Amino acid sequence: MPSEFDLIARFFTRPTPDITLGIGDDCALLTPKPGMQTAISCDMLVSGIHFFADTDPRQLGHKSLAVNLSDLAAMGARPVAFTLALSLPASDEAWLKPFSEGLFALAEKHHCELIGGDTTRGPLSVCITVLGEVPSGEALRRDQARVGDDIWVSGTLGEARAALEFLKGTISLDAEVMGDALTHLQMPTPRVELGMAIRRHAHAAIDLSDGLIGDLSHILNRSKAGATINIDTLPAGQVLHDQPHDFQLRCMLAGGDDYELCFTAPVSSRTAILEAARQTGTAVAVIGTIEKAAGLRLVNAKGEPQAFADKSFDHFSTT
Amino acid sequence: MPSEFDLIARFFTRPTPDITLGIGDDCALLTPKPGMQTAISCDMLVSGIHFFADTDPRQLGHKSLAVNLSDLAAMGARPVAFTLALSLPASDEAWLKPFSEGLFALAEKHHCELIGGDTTRGPLSVCITVLGEVPSGEALRRDQARVGDDIWVSGTLGEARAALEFLKGTISLDAEVMGDALTHLQMPTPRVELGMAIRRHAHAAIDLSDGLIGDLSHILNRSKAGATINIDTLPAGQVLHDQPHDFQLRCMLAGGDDYELCFTAPVSSRTAILEAARQTGTAVAVIGTIEKAAGLRLVNAKGEPQAFADKSFDHFSTT
Repeated sequence: MPSEFDLIARFFTRPTPDITLGIGDDCALLTPKPGMQTAISCDMLVSGIHFFADTDPRQLGHKSLAVNLSDLAAMGARPVAFTLALSLPASDEAWLKPFSEGLFALAEKHHCELIGGDTTRGPLSVCITVLGEVPSGEALRRDQARVGDDIWVSGTLGEARAALEFLKGTISLDAEVMGDALTHLQMPTPRVELGMAIRRHAHAAIDLSDGLIGDLSHILNRSKAGATINIDTLPAGQVLHDQPHDFQLRCMLAGGDDYELCFTAPVSSRTAILEAARQTGTAVAVIGTIEKAAGLRLVNAKGEPQAFADKSFDHFSTT
Repeated sequence: MPSEFDLIARFFTRPTPDITLGIGDDCALLTPKPGMQTAISCDMLVSGIHFFADTDPRQLGHKSLAVNLSDLAAMGARPVAFTLALSLPASDEAWLKPFSEGLFALAEKHHCELIGGDTTRGPLSVCITVLGEVPSGEALRRDQARVGDDIWVSGTLGEARAALEFLKGTISLDAEVMGDALTHLQMPTPRVELGMAIRRHAHAAIDLSDGLIGDLSHILNRSKAGATINIDTLPAGQVLHDQPHDFQLRCMLAGGDDYELCFTAPVSSRTAILEAARQTGTAVAVIGTIEKAAGLRLVNAKGEPQAFADKSFDHFSTT
């Protein structure tokens, strides 16, 4: 069996031309640009909790980095570098090769360089810490939503949850939409370009990992504000169109794993936001309004209040 | 059972006065100081591999951060912040409280602030990425050792491995040295102050996590140099004094988990190194010399060659 060092060298060493000192020392070294702040986020994916044990390693490599890049996107930060800690039951080349390929394909697309890490024997899990840069004072935070702001979401919602329910056998999906749904679950697209493009026009942002209601609530709590969402304006993924209305709503409001951006911006920024969306090739939709009254209210297109019980996916709850 | 967010808030939220934006957003934000580089390292500790499942959580909290701070020390970097990803079988307050106390006691000592993380259900593991700062161009790298340099180590060697063998039941230890040995294994002291103090006097450095021979070999390979070590100058931990000579050597040369610094410096720096050691209250010893001829040679005080087979602890080898 190859040693730990052989494995790291073989699958995880790439040239890092933009990095002062990359893998191979006690630490990596970055040289921050003047006027830039460093944005940092960390996510861990555990087998059996965040992904099935038999998940295609290429998709897992992609998704492990994608969920972290999505956090940078939500701050409007440009990806710079990441560390990877990988716990593996055995040093398995047939797994490591596609995993590293999926990981690096996304990393290279965003010029985000692997600068350090740790490979160890243990139950399968992937822990990534990502670093980005954003001009000082321009980061999109959760606590800056203002009363009157539009609430926007990117892309479409609910596909990843529908795909998960399909894989668990609780719903059936037509072959023509199944592939699209699975792509949303297994190969999510972090909205990095959109996050950077709306940075100067939006007030607050978050990425949707736990579900719209739970994640938007973080913006509301931090910004000491409330909101009304018009459920008839939610951008339902195509895979949901043939599903029951209640299932659609649950997927869109509390499905989780969307990795779309939810952000707030003044009404005066609408044109700029739409132009940013056009330039980055990302769909966006206004789904509600930030209000003074605390709490999150759901209405339909007629303005009638809508009830909804489920809130968010919690890794420690016994769902 | 409290939710994930409750747990994080309760045990892992502390004021972060020196951080631009701490826990609670998609990313943390740091504002790098002009003229400083950012040093980054990542280590993952997995239950059953790096520690016993019943390890005191307070000690585990300490050690998880200590091994990362040791990497910063080996670059001469000042600790700034860290992220923590924690995978836990259950949300167990009786475990989380002492774990967080052990973690924060060390973090606060080094003014290193927790700025982000992820808590998830899963097999017990701890993944930390640490960030430090070092004046541009002053970091201690592995590739800067020069022919004629003294080779130094800090502290004493071998105690952690002796403690591990004691816990595994392969050796017996007197009660009077057992506590000291266990402290080295469970509560190692990262040599942060020493690393910063020798930064301008030393050429190359590494921290000893896998064992002296394996770790020094990284310096030699990167610096395209060789070395001779005088085994009679190795600073044996007191716990080793009553052990057989061969066991002492194995612990000191290939024991692992020492978290001492091994560094090289020109002979002209001896006075400065000793003064740096005195000011930081750290023992240091010269154990050998960097040489032009590749390879690592062991000799005794009489200059006689010494054989040694074991090299390094490898997480994927079937030891």
